[in-house]
Amino acid sequence: MKAAEITVLEEVELNNPIFIEALPGVGHVGKLVADHMIDELNAVKFAEIYSPTFPPQVLVGDEGIIENMINELYYIRGLGEDEHDLILLGGNTQSLSPDGQYIVCNEILDFVEQYGISRIFTLGGVPIGQPMDETRVLGAATDEENVELLKEAEIDIRSNDGGIVGASGLFLGLGIRRGIKGACLMGETPGYFIDAESAEAVLLKLAHILNFEINTEKLDERAEETKEMLARAQQMEQDLINRANSGNADDLRYIG
Amino acid sequence: MKAAEITVLEEVELNNPIFIEALPGVGHVGKLVADHMIDELNAVKFAEIYSPTFPPQVLVGDEGIIENMINELYYIRGLGEDEHDLILLGGNTQSLSPDGQYIVCNEILDFVEQYGISRIFTLGGVPIGQPMDETRVLGAATDEENVELLKEAEIDIRSNDGGIVGASGLFLGLGIRRGIKGACLMGETPGYFIDAESAEAVLLKLAHILNFEINTEKLDERAEETKEMLARAQQMEQDLINRANSGNADDLRYIG
Amino acid sequence: MKAAEITVLEEVELNNPIFIEALPGVGHVGKLVADHMIDELNAVKFAEIYSPTFPPQVLVGDEGIIENMINELYYIRGLGEDEHDLILLGGNTQSLSPDGQYIVCNEILDFVEQYGISRIFTLGGVPIGQPMDETRVLGAATDEENVELLKEAEIDIRSNDGGIVGASGLFLGLGIRRGIKGACLMGETPGYFIDAESAEAVLLKLAHILNFEINTEKLDERAEETKEMLARAQQMEQDLINRANSGNADDLRYIG
Amino acid sequence: MKAAEITVLEEVELNNPIFIEALPGVGHVGKLVADHMIDELNAVKFAEIYSPTFPPQVLVGDEGIIENMINELYYIRGLGEDEHDLILLGGNTQSLSPDGQYIVCNEILDFVEQYGISRIFTLGGVPIGQPMDETRVLGAATDEENVELLKEAEIDIRSNDGGIVGASGLFLGLGIRRGIKGACLMGETPGYFIDAESAEAVLLKLAHILNFEINTEKLDERAEETKEMLARAQQMEQDLINRANSGNADDLRYIG
Repeated sequence: MKAAEITVLEEVELNNPIFIEALPGVGHVGKLVADHMIDELNAVKFAEIYSPTFPPQVLVGDEGIIENMINELYYIRGLGEDEHDLILLGGNTQSLSPDGQYIVCNEILDFVEQYGISRIFTLGGVPIGQPMDETRVLGAATDEENVELLKEAEIDIRSNDGGIVGASGLFLGLGIRRGIKGACLMGETPGYFIDAESAEAVLLKLAHILNFEINTEKLDERAEETKEMLARAQQMEQDLINRANSGNADDLRYIG
Repeated sequence: MKAAEITVLEEVELNNPIFIEALPGVGHVGKLVADHMIDELNAVKFAEIYSPTFPPQVLVGDEGIIENMINELYYIRGLGEDEHDLILLGGNTQSLSPDGQYIVCNEILDFVEQYGISRIFTLGGVPIGQPMDETRVLGAATDEENVELLKEAEIDIRSNDGGIVGASGLFLGLGIRRGIKGACLMGETPGYFIDAESAEAVLLKLAHILNFEINTEKLDERAEETKEMLARAQQMEQDLINRANSGNADDLRYIG
Repeated sequence: MKAAEITVLEEVELNNPIFIEALPGVGHVGKLVADHMIDELNAVKFAEIYSPTFPPQVLVGDEGIIENMINELYYIRGLGEDEHDLILLGGNTQSLSPDGQYIVCNEILDFVEQYGISRIFTLGGVPIGQPMDETRVLGAATDEENVELLKEAEIDIRSNDGGIVGASGLFLGLGIRRGIKGACLMGETPGYFIDAESAEAVLLKLAHILNFEINTEKLDERAEETKEMLARAQQMEQDLINRANSGNADDLRYIG
Repeated sequence: MKAAEITVLEEVELNNPIFIEALPGVGHVGKLVADHMIDELNAVKFAEIYSPTFPPQVLVGDEGIIENMINELYYIRGLGEDEHDLILLGGNTQSLSPDGQYIVCNEILDFVEQYGISRIFTLGGVPIGQPMDETRVLGAATDEENVELLKEAEIDIRSNDGGIVGASGLFLGLGIRRGIKGACLMGETPGYFIDAESAEAVLLKLAHILNFEINTEKLDERAEETKEMLARAQQMEQDLINRANSGNADDLRYIG
């Protein structure tokens, strides 16, 4: 079993695609953006990534149908005036182990590099830890030119203030080593709920930078649905944690 | 040392076997079902699985005899009117590490696929975290047809409510990738004791779906025995934890 | 870098040696027994085992001289009336990771099997968690014959009461899979200090079973020395933990 | 992806170089010393080490520019009267996993051994856990000769008092196995802030032993800058931890 198994669903040729990472993370900002872009921009799934470094579980989806933990690659054609293409990385998980993160991100980058990606944007949330009046989008980039691009889009530049953890950081770091430039857009979010406003702010900045239009009306609706699903999942998780104080901890490692 | 070493004890040919996973987990539901089926249905052990991803320990069993941490495959012949066979996966443990779970489940599935398995059922408990009036059996499946099958058996379908962690989830997820369908039967259980009632409820639903008869009288008795054994083990574990607050934590990692 | 690097210091031939595992663990019982046997029985070190699965550190020993984390194999010749030989496994550590435990124990067993080992005894402590009036030695074994041997030595047999974690369990479990029999001798100990009495009790039972004589006078003295060294180490560890509440936790992972 | 990828930036020949490890750790003592030596002694970076065992993240540096987690090798030519060279190991991280520590240190040692290194010095802090009146430098070494050298420099020798964890310990331990001798210099530090005084004390002892001169004026200034950067990073980390008590813990694993 390889650290990342990539199944190609459709052979495509893309026009100078930009690579967008939007995996689940703080406030589900990245995932909300990915789900919304997939729906609104006629994204087509062309590859799936499966890995033993993902959490050892499945999800129960609509109508009791089981879904694997997975990352997915979509293409979106002809955005903006210059009709460039996008490759969008979405999914329901990130690798659980630190070295799994490196290995899976590296394999995905190997794969999408074949399509001639010219730049990388990674999307996510930054937890603020308290209610906010307005939703700022923060940014950082691999080089000065991209920092300027962020500033022009009125994104606040982070500076000397810690790290970007997980796929949103690693894709940019691995990109630097390959000479592929890019930037990270991070929406501020209280961090403890599904934040549609933060996702909208990030999405609008991305659309501005990449010069495409997108309707954000349904984002709220989508956030509502995600909220309900997660509420149930968290309740189950909390029950597990409660039990851990009164029973045999070993029993609680697996539902199965 | 390979991630999973499978020792074949008997070469057998089986008639379209259904694969049943019933490893230890919440409320020991899966393990109770496995142990009971092995006794009542003349199960024959035909393979053993040993792995460095299992907990690094042995168990002290009856009369001071030491047992390895192990998974075991049994076959059961000629159940129901159509006289189909079963392959039952039981044992005393699951892999400790997340990637170990993936790797060992995958190797076991490679192995049982050689016997031409046609479907997968995974059994376990769902922790409710409080005393219950009645024991419901919940279900989820890889496809609509199997969801219908569960509904016909009056099993409550989970929907959009989180994950199935460990072997009970992974065997179904790995099955999906190979085109093998299946379902998970989960007995509700308070989760903090050995739950014979939950095991009985799961077992009766399975017997109904797979169309075989089984006497469940001795399940209570078996649960009693398991309860006593675990009580002692938990006491020892608690002592270890208590010591961790007053001594050198490093010393406490190993009894040996 | 291999999971276990075994350096042979002396080529020896041994007469039907019995393999004794006495690595550090609860109450430092195993290590105390190993150190005492090495001194009193003219043990000769003939191999060293080094592994990246050991804790990533060195120890500061006498006079500021740095020592690697290491396991060591000693031989002891001509014990008892039948003049059998022993191979003794001592050292200052066990593997940190669960699969490291399996892999290193397995490699060591591969190595000592070349010397024709006929039986395995593993030594350790069982934490009781409270002061005790007398020090019992508990036992378990791979087979009935060895359980009988323990009973004849008036060792209390554990039964259905949990696990033996770490090297003391794994060597016996791995032995079962190779057809090598053996037993575990565990001295009861409060568990939160260096327990010379528990080590003495275990050592005397072993000497009785293996039919050799040993002077235990210096065990107390040795326990005193170990106690002092550990007290200092624990103080440093405690300081580290205290700091973790007021500083950057990342800084505290490494002294270096 | 290899456990350590070493990129050579410049082919150099060095004169009997001494290898200095000064990676981040307690009180940032090692890192402060490295940064200061690099600036003051005309150090030239000649190799970079990148590893999937490092934390899965990037850092946001000056002006929003993203930096990879990395270790770096510098050479410094012609120090002291005998004009010996140094190889200095600096960077912004150490391996996260225990076996990663062993593997990466071993690969780095393989690499620098090609330059004919004759000795190893490792630098770091020892956490005292409380304010101190004076900053002592403690030492330990691989052999008596180097212990004497430390004593001559009025360094206090640690003895029988625990371990040296991480790269500062492992380089010396791995050196012993290759016949390369060395010593560890550890500055006492409260441990919960960036300690320029401790770094200065360690640096002056090293300069004394290796017979070179260095101006330490700017160390305070540098410590101030590091303090500010870390304060911001710690605030973000604290926010994350706060959120972990009120939201879905899974969300908090990744900012991205």
